[in-house]
Amino acid sequence: MIVVMEPKATEAQIQKVANYLEGHGFKINLNRGEVLTVIAAIGDKRMVSTSVINSFEGVHEVKLIQEPYKLAGRGAHPEDTVITFENGVKIGGSEKPVLMVGPCSVEKEFEGLLEVAVAAKEMGCEFLRGGAFKPRTSPYDFQGLEEKGLQYLHEASKRTGLLVVTEVMDTIDIPLLNKYADVIQVGARNMQNFKLLKALGNIKKPVMIKRGPSANIREFLLAAEYVIFNGNPNVILCERGIRTFDHDFTRNTLDLAAVPILRKYSHLPVVVDPSHGTGKRYLIEPMGKAALVAGAHGLMYEVHHDPDHASSDGAQSLSIPQFKEITKRINKLIGRIDYDNKATERQQKIAKEN
Amino acid sequence: MIVVMEPKATEAQIQKVANYLEGHGFKINLNRGEVLTVIAAIGDKRMVSTSVINSFEGVHEVKLIQEPYKLAGRGAHPEDTVITFENGVKIGGSEKPVLMVGPCSVEKEFEGLLEVAVAAKEMGCEFLRGGAFKPRTSPYDFQGLEEKGLQYLHEASKRTGLLVVTEVMDTIDIPLLNKYADVIQVGARNMQNFKLLKALGNIKKPVMIKRGPSANIREFLLAAEYVIFNGNPNVILCERGIRTFDHDFTRNTLDLAAVPILRKYSHLPVVVDPSHGTGKRYLIEPMGKAALVAGAHGLMYEVHHDPDHASSDGAQSLSIPQFKEITKRINKLIGRIDYDNKATERQQKIAKEN
Amino acid sequence: MIVVMEPKATEAQIQKVANYLEGHGFKINLNRGEVLTVIAAIGDKRMVSTSVINSFEGVHEVKLIQEPYKLAGRGAHPEDTVITFENGVKIGGSEKPVLMVGPCSVEKEFEGLLEVAVAAKEMGCEFLRGGAFKPRTSPYDFQGLEEKGLQYLHEASKRTGLLVVTEVMDTIDIPLLNKYADVIQVGARNMQNFKLLKALGNIKKPVMIKRGPSANIREFLLAAEYVIFNGNPNVILCERGIRTFDHDFTRNTLDLAAVPILRKYSHLPVVVDPSHGTGKRYLIEPMGKAALVAGAHGLMYEVHHDPDHASSDGAQSLSIPQFKEITKRINKLIGRIDYDNKATERQQKIAKEN
Amino acid sequence: MIVVMEPKATEAQIQKVANYLEGHGFKINLNRGEVLTVIAAIGDKRMVSTSVINSFEGVHEVKLIQEPYKLAGRGAHPEDTVITFENGVKIGGSEKPVLMVGPCSVEKEFEGLLEVAVAAKEMGCEFLRGGAFKPRTSPYDFQGLEEKGLQYLHEASKRTGLLVVTEVMDTIDIPLLNKYADVIQVGARNMQNFKLLKALGNIKKPVMIKRGPSANIREFLLAAEYVIFNGNPNVILCERGIRTFDHDFTRNTLDLAAVPILRKYSHLPVVVDPSHGTGKRYLIEPMGKAALVAGAHGLMYEVHHDPDHASSDGAQSLSIPQFKEITKRINKLIGRIDYDNKATERQQKIAKEN
Repeated sequence: MIVVMEPKATEAQIQKVANYLEGHGFKINLNRGEVLTVIAAIGDKRMVSTSVINSFEGVHEVKLIQEPYKLAGRGAHPEDTVITFENGVKIGGSEKPVLMVGPCSVEKEFEGLLEVAVAAKEMGCEFLRGGAFKPRTSPYDFQGLEEKGLQYLHEASKRTGLLVVTEVMDTIDIPLLNKYADVIQVGARNMQNFKLLKALGNIKKPVMIKRGPSANIREFLLAAEYVIFNGNPNVILCERGIRTFDHDFTRNTLDLAAVPILRKYSHLPVVVDPSHGTGKRYLIEPMGKAALVAGAHGLMYEVHHDPDHASSDGAQSLSIPQFKEITKRINKLIGRIDYDNKATERQQKIAKEN
Repeated sequence: MIVVMEPKATEAQIQKVANYLEGHGFKINLNRGEVLTVIAAIGDKRMVSTSVINSFEGVHEVKLIQEPYKLAGRGAHPEDTVITFENGVKIGGSEKPVLMVGPCSVEKEFEGLLEVAVAAKEMGCEFLRGGAFKPRTSPYDFQGLEEKGLQYLHEASKRTGLLVVTEVMDTIDIPLLNKYADVIQVGARNMQNFKLLKALGNIKKPVMIKRGPSANIREFLLAAEYVIFNGNPNVILCERGIRTFDHDFTRNTLDLAAVPILRKYSHLPVVVDPSHGTGKRYLIEPMGKAALVAGAHGLMYEVHHDPDHASSDGAQSLSIPQFKEITKRINKLIGRIDYDNKATERQQKIAKEN
Repeated sequence: MIVVMEPKATEAQIQKVANYLEGHGFKINLNRGEVLTVIAAIGDKRMVSTSVINSFEGVHEVKLIQEPYKLAGRGAHPEDTVITFENGVKIGGSEKPVLMVGPCSVEKEFEGLLEVAVAAKEMGCEFLRGGAFKPRTSPYDFQGLEEKGLQYLHEASKRTGLLVVTEVMDTIDIPLLNKYADVIQVGARNMQNFKLLKALGNIKKPVMIKRGPSANIREFLLAAEYVIFNGNPNVILCERGIRTFDHDFTRNTLDLAAVPILRKYSHLPVVVDPSHGTGKRYLIEPMGKAALVAGAHGLMYEVHHDPDHASSDGAQSLSIPQFKEITKRINKLIGRIDYDNKATERQQKIAKEN
Repeated sequence: MIVVMEPKATEAQIQKVANYLEGHGFKINLNRGEVLTVIAAIGDKRMVSTSVINSFEGVHEVKLIQEPYKLAGRGAHPEDTVITFENGVKIGGSEKPVLMVGPCSVEKEFEGLLEVAVAAKEMGCEFLRGGAFKPRTSPYDFQGLEEKGLQYLHEASKRTGLLVVTEVMDTIDIPLLNKYADVIQVGARNMQNFKLLKALGNIKKPVMIKRGPSANIREFLLAAEYVIFNGNPNVILCERGIRTFDHDFTRNTLDLAAVPILRKYSHLPVVVDPSHGTGKRYLIEPMGKAALVAGAHGLMYEVHHDPDHASSDGAQSLSIPQFKEITKRINKLIGRIDYDNKATERQQKIAKEN
């Protein structure tokens, strides 16, 4: 930690900060300049909060020099995390990217969901996604089928062999989700629902955390840290667009640079959702492909058997024929990328040198 | 609802949308221009989701013409909501603005909290704030005293007569909060935790919702709508800063225009939190005063008996002597503003004319 | 400057940075921690660019510890700048706030402008604003009367005694503006038109710089620094709203905290424009008042003799009767604020203690 | 244009708006709902400003239904614009993507620039980029070599056959730029310097406009519209990152979805700058590749013969060996993408169907 004192800080103020830090086990080094003094404090940040130091009289700024995500970060865990499912599907590291597809919400006719699942299986996808509990901005919008939706997903999974990804919205629903889902998703709006994150640390099921619409990379990784710190190392990160000033042509701004950044600073698998990330059907293919080329371990996108009558997010859902067309080309791209090849190594070498 | 069709939309596509809307009880008016067709549909938006319409082939854009917050909005509820507490304190409408003060977190020594409460009472404040459940970005930061913290708040309230405002983080804690708090706060990061909002609709206790860091005004009012729609009309809105590109000098950008906007479009009381809204002690006074002049029904700000040793947010907390100085001047300002005066009426008249 | 090296930086990499900085006149202090090394470099930042240091191998981060605006900042210039005009009007410091009012654009009928100017004079305003050169997002929108507009402003000024504020859009127009204007305004979209800023440093006329829609406080002060550094110390800062994710109810987000921040870190006068800052007529009064209470040295807002037929920004312009009503109340508020009183001193004292 | 009236708008207010629009040549269609009236006005938006309509009493909202960029948009110009240079290089449409590389600034030793140009030629790049006039946030940073820099670029171009891209900062420098450059670049901070855009409409030289850090897609296309409307159809668009809340790990947020959006709504060539768009050397390759896969017509990135001693932006510049490695892989990717293939056609077909 570096503490920059105000130019007018008194000797007593400087000593007070230094003593406080030493008292908490930090090694202190004072740099006295002509204009101001900088205190470099080496030690375990967890012992003291930067906001406490910030509140001392005479302190200008406190700067962390080590990232606070010890478990989600690469520092102490240089190897990529690869999550392996019972049916052998793997996600992360240099494994082939996975595809997670399905409708935004599970709806009351099972047949539609099954139709999507069958098409997904046919195209080689690994996961069926679908919301049984739906976070909706308005109380007047469709709120999801709840347990019945989970049963539908489970049934479609049994018939096709696809794994199920679905969202949890509240701690009390975790046992239910744990029973039906293969991956439990934390929605973007719940990314900082810390009670939920802690509770998901107590199970073993893989958890996919979607990035909050205004969460920075650090906060995103700290959300993962909550789950891992509480006992569950099986965390997948999902970039799904951030909120910026520009939302005339898209619903969110898909931050694809997050993919190589997360892969550099974290060992966790990174998935990209171009459906929510853009909100536009015609952007799923170009942004999905771009995400894969940027290093994503998987894509999640929306398919509906009848988008004109979807109960949510129809505008960003593909019809089944569109889905097949696009997925054929995405598969071709995935096949082309040699994930073990020398190019990646060289690129990582340059990355390390920065 | 207005549906703008693509310039190249076919007659069949236009009819499909029109029929769908008529089938859902909308009255349809087709405007055929030389370039494109616009469908004006008058009816109850709750019967159909805009995203469904958006997904029809040939649709360029769907625009809502009525705001979706029927219960939180002024349309159907022109009178201001005034919430009256058992001890006679009122918030909202043209009542005197209230002050909600206290430490960010309730900490393990009760005496510090009591010291703050006594000073708050002395300065005429109405509410004691303090977190027993703390949402923290990092799992390594102090997470709150939980029930013990609530008991401390309750005890400090009993001794001083102050009302208690404190945050709920999870549906399972609502009964506990309901027992100890006079106002249950929903934190900014939980503003779209819809399960929590629904559950708070089932109690009668006033709920104060803090605006999410990336929530727009519409989403903020829809969060209130969730609580009211589920049965609890006692909702207070709290502006606490939004996340923008600029956070070198402040923690958030306090959006003070939200105050007159919310007062124009909603009947609910509006409170401003300049402590979280800026993150800087020296900005509490100017921004607090500005909020009151802009029409806020109350302020919430942080005071700590010993900010240098606060377990959270020390940098934005006032010491007790600072608190007294600033509150003296804020009280003077409140006394000066005649909330029933003609000026406000005239201003509202102009507002209506826009 | 503080250079944080990567945990894996080699001794050679550390020495290379240290030698480079020493070679540029910095005094170096190495802090070797168990995990990483921090180089504290004390010296004149102008001698070296942080981006150069950033590009050295093994460098994790470069942090400035002194603000780069030496002339615009309070560090070397603790006294407030007060600009005095020929007619005795003053702006800045503890002077009474000024009012700058007028139409967005100067239009082809002189009478309308004069009508506004007469009303402005009557209400005690000091400045007449109006655009002769208009920056417009679309080439199809009204682009301004150019020199004829300047002549109109000059004539209205001669008849009423008001000072003229008007915008420059290009270096080649500076001589013309210099002839007709009392304050030359740099528009928000030109805040980083560095050629223009430099050229305005070569004249003596006061320059009012509007904050760019995505400029942070540091960049805003550096724009002022350009003008001062090139020879013109008469700079006024104008907060006019920033671009954020929320623009359904307003055109921009008026960042009122910028007022006390700029007053703390700079000695320059600070004006607020609630017309552009919100884009809504009904928000001019509450946000204008809030700005004054937060410490603004002046307000700029739009008045049009016939807003329904304004050639630009009618929606945010007041009619003359509305203008008079609102300005009467703003004047009352200004009269109430005792700018020399003890309260301000105490507040500044607290600010310094942070 | 659609004008939504307030629910309480009077008949007189409705007629006033309708009459005004009819008087300006619009065809009017009134939709009277139970709650409110919507006026659909079909006609040429250029005849009237939406802000005028917005300012009429009783108007709730004015919505454009046609995009305002007539010349830059695809509506009236469905074919892709392909710009062909004297040496046969083409940019746009389905031509092979081009590479524009070079140092951020041209510096005082010609040899370094030449070394970069030779390497660029060797790797098959088409353009040499380099700034002779440098927009710098601080007046204390290196401001560019000006004409001497242009001469260096010209000389390097003569020796290698590369085309020159360089930035103009002021209208008075256009003749100079026109003499030395093959593409004149408008920097991000000047994207709304309308005098400059107009002046560039008067020459024939291709103009590359970089997207402003807070410019939305519409404003970006309107900047192009300025140049085309004033006579120069040779415009290239360059996405270079936008300013968002997240800038801890990157300098800007590269908005790659802008590529397919711009290609759908405009016929102009689209280039991406991953160097400025991220500010990090290790992100150039993944984001550059992703941009190409998303449909970019070219990339612009920074190479410096000695990044450790660059006078600007060293941290985001590649060294020559790094440049060669990365460009080899980018070339491989370009070679792999079959720009004339069926996939693109099918994708465009889906896009049209939205």
